[in-house]
Amino acid sequence: MKRLLITGAAGALGRVMRERLAPMATILRLSDIAPIGAARKNEEIVQCDLADAKAVHALVEDCDGIVHLGGVSVERKFSQIVAGNIVGLYNLYEAARAHRMPRIVFASSNHTIGFYPQTERLSVDHPYRPDGLYGVSKCFGESLAQMYHEKFGQETALVRIGSCVAEPVNHRMLSTWFSYDDFVSLIEAVFRAPKLGCPVIWGASNNDAGWWDNSAAGFLGWKPKDNAEIFRSKIEAACERPGPDDSAARWQGGLFTQDPIFPEDE
Amino acid sequence: MKRLLITGAAGALGRVMRERLAPMATILRLSDIAPIGAARKNEEIVQCDLADAKAVHALVEDCDGIVHLGGVSVERKFSQIVAGNIVGLYNLYEAARAHRMPRIVFASSNHTIGFYPQTERLSVDHPYRPDGLYGVSKCFGESLAQMYHEKFGQETALVRIGSCVAEPVNHRMLSTWFSYDDFVSLIEAVFRAPKLGCPVIWGASNNDAGWWDNSAAGFLGWKPKDNAEIFRSKIEAACERPGPDDSAARWQGGLFTQDPIFPEDE
Amino acid sequence: MKRLLITGAAGALGRVMRERLAPMATILRLSDIAPIGAARKNEEIVQCDLADAKAVHALVEDCDGIVHLGGVSVERKFSQIVAGNIVGLYNLYEAARAHRMPRIVFASSNHTIGFYPQTERLSVDHPYRPDGLYGVSKCFGESLAQMYHEKFGQETALVRIGSCVAEPVNHRMLSTWFSYDDFVSLIEAVFRAPKLGCPVIWGASNNDAGWWDNSAAGFLGWKPKDNAEIFRSKIEAACERPGPDDSAARWQGGLFTQDPIFPEDE
Amino acid sequence: MKRLLITGAAGALGRVMRERLAPMATILRLSDIAPIGAARKNEEIVQCDLADAKAVHALVEDCDGIVHLGGVSVERKFSQIVAGNIVGLYNLYEAARAHRMPRIVFASSNHTIGFYPQTERLSVDHPYRPDGLYGVSKCFGESLAQMYHEKFGQETALVRIGSCVAEPVNHRMLSTWFSYDDFVSLIEAVFRAPKLGCPVIWGASNNDAGWWDNSAAGFLGWKPKDNAEIFRSKIEAACERPGPDDSAARWQGGLFTQDPIFPEDE
Amino acid sequence: MKRLLITGAAGALGRVMRERLAPMATILRLSDIAPIGAARKNEEIVQCDLADAKAVHALVEDCDGIVHLGGVSVERKFSQIVAGNIVGLYNLYEAARAHRMPRIVFASSNHTIGFYPQTERLSVDHPYRPDGLYGVSKCFGESLAQMYHEKFGQETALVRIGSCVAEPVNHRMLSTWFSYDDFVSLIEAVFRAPKLGCPVIWGASNNDAGWWDNSAAGFLGWKPKDNAEIFRSKIEAACERPGPDDSAARWQGGLFTQDPIFPEDE
Amino acid sequence: MKRLLITGAAGALGRVMRERLAPMATILRLSDIAPIGAARKNEEIVQCDLADAKAVHALVEDCDGIVHLGGVSVERKFSQIVAGNIVGLYNLYEAARAHRMPRIVFASSNHTIGFYPQTERLSVDHPYRPDGLYGVSKCFGESLAQMYHEKFGQETALVRIGSCVAEPVNHRMLSTWFSYDDFVSLIEAVFRAPKLGCPVIWGASNNDAGWWDNSAAGFLGWKPKDNAEIFRSKIEAACERPGPDDSAARWQGGLFTQDPIFPEDE
Repeated sequence: MKRLLITGAAGALGRVMRERLAPMATILRLSDIAPIGAARKNEEIVQCDLADAKAVHALVEDCDGIVHLGGVSVERKFSQIVAGNIVGLYNLYEAARAHRMPRIVFASSNHTIGFYPQTERLSVDHPYRPDGLYGVSKCFGESLAQMYHEKFGQETALVRIGSCVAEPVNHRMLSTWFSYDDFVSLIEAVFRAPKLGCPVIWGASNNDAGWWDNSAAGFLGWKPKDNAEIFRSKIEAACERPGPDDSAARWQGGLFTQDPIFPEDE
Repeated sequence: MKRLLITGAAGALGRVMRERLAPMATILRLSDIAPIGAARKNEEIVQCDLADAKAVHALVEDCDGIVHLGGVSVERKFSQIVAGNIVGLYNLYEAARAHRMPRIVFASSNHTIGFYPQTERLSVDHPYRPDGLYGVSKCFGESLAQMYHEKFGQETALVRIGSCVAEPVNHRMLSTWFSYDDFVSLIEAVFRAPKLGCPVIWGASNNDAGWWDNSAAGFLGWKPKDNAEIFRSKIEAACERPGPDDSAARWQGGLFTQDPIFPEDE
Repeated sequence: MKRLLITGAAGALGRVMRERLAPMATILRLSDIAPIGAARKNEEIVQCDLADAKAVHALVEDCDGIVHLGGVSVERKFSQIVAGNIVGLYNLYEAARAHRMPRIVFASSNHTIGFYPQTERLSVDHPYRPDGLYGVSKCFGESLAQMYHEKFGQETALVRIGSCVAEPVNHRMLSTWFSYDDFVSLIEAVFRAPKLGCPVIWGASNNDAGWWDNSAAGFLGWKPKDNAEIFRSKIEAACERPGPDDSAARWQGGLFTQDPIFPEDE
Repeated sequence: MKRLLITGAAGALGRVMRERLAPMATILRLSDIAPIGAARKNEEIVQCDLADAKAVHALVEDCDGIVHLGGVSVERKFSQIVAGNIVGLYNLYEAARAHRMPRIVFASSNHTIGFYPQTERLSVDHPYRPDGLYGVSKCFGESLAQMYHEKFGQETALVRIGSCVAEPVNHRMLSTWFSYDDFVSLIEAVFRAPKLGCPVIWGASNNDAGWWDNSAAGFLGWKPKDNAEIFRSKIEAACERPGPDDSAARWQGGLFTQDPIFPEDE
Repeated sequence: MKRLLITGAAGALGRVMRERLAPMATILRLSDIAPIGAARKNEEIVQCDLADAKAVHALVEDCDGIVHLGGVSVERKFSQIVAGNIVGLYNLYEAARAHRMPRIVFASSNHTIGFYPQTERLSVDHPYRPDGLYGVSKCFGESLAQMYHEKFGQETALVRIGSCVAEPVNHRMLSTWFSYDDFVSLIEAVFRAPKLGCPVIWGASNNDAGWWDNSAAGFLGWKPKDNAEIFRSKIEAACERPGPDDSAARWQGGLFTQDPIFPEDE
Repeated sequence: MKRLLITGAAGALGRVMRERLAPMATILRLSDIAPIGAARKNEEIVQCDLADAKAVHALVEDCDGIVHLGGVSVERKFSQIVAGNIVGLYNLYEAARAHRMPRIVFASSNHTIGFYPQTERLSVDHPYRPDGLYGVSKCFGESLAQMYHEKFGQETALVRIGSCVAEPVNHRMLSTWFSYDDFVSLIEAVFRAPKLGCPVIWGASNNDAGWWDNSAAGFLGWKPKDNAEIFRSKIEAACERPGPDDSAARWQGGLFTQDPIFPEDE
């Protein structure tokens, strides 16, 4: 690939991917609404508000692939979510449509289905049960991508990220952990596949305690290799085990199910 | 019911419901962004932009039920859809949450699933396949309502309206027609049910040629009575039959699947 | 049919069936643990405790069909349930096995699935969710009958009775009502079918507000004809509508879900 | 329709359809391997062996629709089945492909699924369970039609005929009867539909005792109106009821499940 | 865990678990109707008939977890099954309800589904098909536990044990074997899980020839490690292969499907 | 096994199996319509046209197992397919029925389902979607075998072979590859199983990029061990990656979906 765009490149996950995806393309174009710092060799830095349609068109031009980590990634007041995850996503897809429809890896979220109990195993076809406004905005994003696929042929991997962190740090992450290595190998598989379509993919490692059946993504030839189970004793030692009626143990979305709606005027 | 709010009351369907729902409540509160005309006896008229949060809070206060027909109901440029169907819907649900959570009938749409072929029968659990930005905004609306239900207890009937017109006027409407009588009887059933939850309901009459399995809504005790089939010979006489590869015959969303994305600057 | 046995013939439903089923057989043999009164013409009266194996063998001998309404039909202390619905049922099936395996109509119950929400539509294959010890004993009965079918060829109709009363008298019964006429026509269909097997059948009329999909029993050629809906306005006038969080509106088993476990020493 | 071809027109069902379908087209072209008799007004008679590719090409030319009743319709020795139902069907589809692909109503059969028990309800997606070589040849026919649909766009209605006779004459036909009226109205619906595709349709009337869920064909707007149940008492009076272990009561294919393989040299 | 109760501790499996579960709790309380022998250090021995309600209440008091292996574990006369598996189970659950509802591992059985063919793969939601009175009593037990979960919040792991023996000794056990190690690791997972609920879990090792899909229990983070396949050549050498029509090869319940009903007076 | 018949033994796969299956039987009987060469020790060579019923009866006599690789294995003119795959298969099953019904491994094909997209995961119960006449003939073969199983008890393994070659040589084969080792171990499992029935088995190795869920065949205790993924970089280096709209990337049947119908007179 010649030029790969990473949005949200100043965020925690973006900074990791900036390192890890560098070998996949001749040029990494890195974008965020926040400052990213100086460009390294083979990098292009573009500070850009996703809500600015023109800026996004310029951002996407000449890219051969997009890893879209940008926008809001936790519960926020709704105006922020609209700007980043709704208008921003529309801008991204319109820009992609105008510029040869490069494949997109879309960072969707387990919070699209956060109100399923942890005792239930999910396929990719279970109806949405979002756990907050953020989760609702990710349902919107999946629907938008699906529509651009059916109507225009745009291909997207809808990656419902669990907990993409260096290592799991609480009981729930024994089920939701998504190692950096596994995310990177997934992105490679997405960009190398002859045909992608617009599949939902569970962004989780091969965790013994996982909740999500990823067999529908098998056609990509991607197999997550890591397993949160190796961190169990460390977590048991470090964290109090939640009770069976705690949100942290009850719902797949965990504590997000308890977040309030953040008022606009705060 | 003491006070029933109808949003979108100046629109085609809103004007019909203004007449038909009057017997259901002591007071009809009617709202639209466009002028509605003078209040009749037992009516309150409120001109209101759904994108205006404060106005929507005032609108919803003291209402005992809401029939939400407002917002954009066809493909439009995205900024309009965001204002009416995304920010507007959020405002409505926040207002409802602040004011004793009256039950809501939400006018969702068959365009949430418009890219299914007409030869396929759908249950309420089939994944979304929206056919345009409008359809995507209705997917968003259903997800938002579902989240307010699971998180806060707000009850909503998600009515995926087919073609709610006086009578069917083309071949596709033999499958999608939703008579005014059947919509009215559904609204009555929704407000009289001891328990509503947040069900998806296909807004269609009992059409011989229907595509949608409404058995999941059976618990409401609502049965549509009308049948578009009685208009078949009239339609055959008046309309040219579409070919098997025409969008009008191929997709459940019909010609909406061909709508372009409307640019912002037009 | 020459001789039809009705157990539980002194109970409310048994007394009705004594009248209604008389035309189906030359002789009705009527049994109960309580006194039944004098035999009419073409009747045989047998007072019998189902927990008495020898008495049950004598009871079943020479019968050509059995309508088993006997045993406990509401929540009771467990020792009573064991005697009537567990040991009693075993005795009945052993007696049937010893005496040419006459077909059995087994009065099972909606309380085998009472903890499903009223907003959910059920097929006959949904797993059990009993709402009390009585419901558990009916799950036991269905399993026992199924085993006698697979192991020995005994045929049984497992009729999960909703509310078999003269007319529905509360909101829940708009969904669960089973008219006497419909129960009688079902019993006729069971005994006339060339092949019965051991099907689960929802014992409910053709109620608009019904929760249960009876299509799996279609092969019997039985169609319930009555519809509780005609009693809706009478019920709305007579009963307060339950709130959405009341057990009466929430669970298919209604108020049985609130019954305590009755202690043995009361 | 200008010209409608009926194959198998000299057979029992063909003779009925010759009468009943005449109003559907300006010209009926009638074909059979056996003599059909003289052409009436608006008829063309073509004696034709389906195994003769050239003759079949000539037969199909200029037709606007095909009702394919030809070939073998009961268990026969395999060479006859190959000639009529396998080579003959291939010839018909090749001829249709060469001549503008007129829509085809293909007389498939319940014997494609004859080894399902009568106590089981079937959708159109249940896997095949044919009950003899004839049934296997109809499975072949459905697969061939499906392939011509996906590969070339040929549309076919795969009508799995139950028992298409003047009235039901045994217990099994209470479930399988397909009235002439209902078959005619289905054929009308097939030819008037804007989009047909290649659906499996159960060729059965609206029998109370039916086994087959026809909802997948609902998009055609066709509803069978007749009901074998009205003949039940006549059948009960005229026929001995089969025992529960008789093939006539056990399998959907009835006595066909007992047919032997007919040897070639008889 | 402070005190773990093992019932059925004098049985074959109980004796193994007495050894293996000792590290899981400060005190093992061991119970059986038969003599168990002397208490070792950190053990409490309670001889107890499960049919004795008062004794069971005393047994359960102060326990923090229960591994319930007690009751009848093969086909027996029904009075024994009632005492041990029906009244005994009720007593156990009532005692648990009275004493802070410690988690229960319930030894259910593959004989709840013994009449499924060995060629069929089962999920936990397949309907029961018990193969004898013992199997029926385990269906009862699962229903009872489910009811206590929904009604009172009691958590239970319903472990449908296959063949929990030191090593597999016939062809059927290549599919059903449950190694001691795997059972122990399952029990550990059950007691450490933040949330258990009331799941059905297939009590089988990771056998290549297994019949049961255990993915629904994945949330526990338990993975069986052993595989009966390593014993295949030993079994092939030692046992005659059963024929395809033998119960040992035909039914998942194997030879239990052939057990008679044991009469009471033997 | 005393005598194992391999049909199609002169073909590419047949020649491999001649080597690999030799240890499974005392005598290999090898058959083909083409010359096979001289018999080795412990071999019997029979040149035989499958369309010749008498010859096939002689061929099958005294065999204890059959690996049926014979007939046409790619798209051909229909008369050839009829001779080899339809009449030939009937002859084989009639011969087997006459001669103690030895188990059959039937080489079915992925081209029975070739028109499913590569992005869809299939179970063995997905309806057929054949991609040509060859694929249709394999659907026929599966139906025929199923009928002989249900009607006469003949057992067959319906192995839908993907790409059984020495190693994968294009992108599609990363999903479809079936190593010789895995095919051999499957054949061993089929002949050693106490009960076979008539299962569909996906003939594919344990490929990371596989499309087919083989869990229904788990009861055989067979686990494919090879994985095409190890050849990915070699394939990426040697082959151009197909575009997302190429048949090679779009359909499970790959380029077969583009084959024409071959005319008879070529």
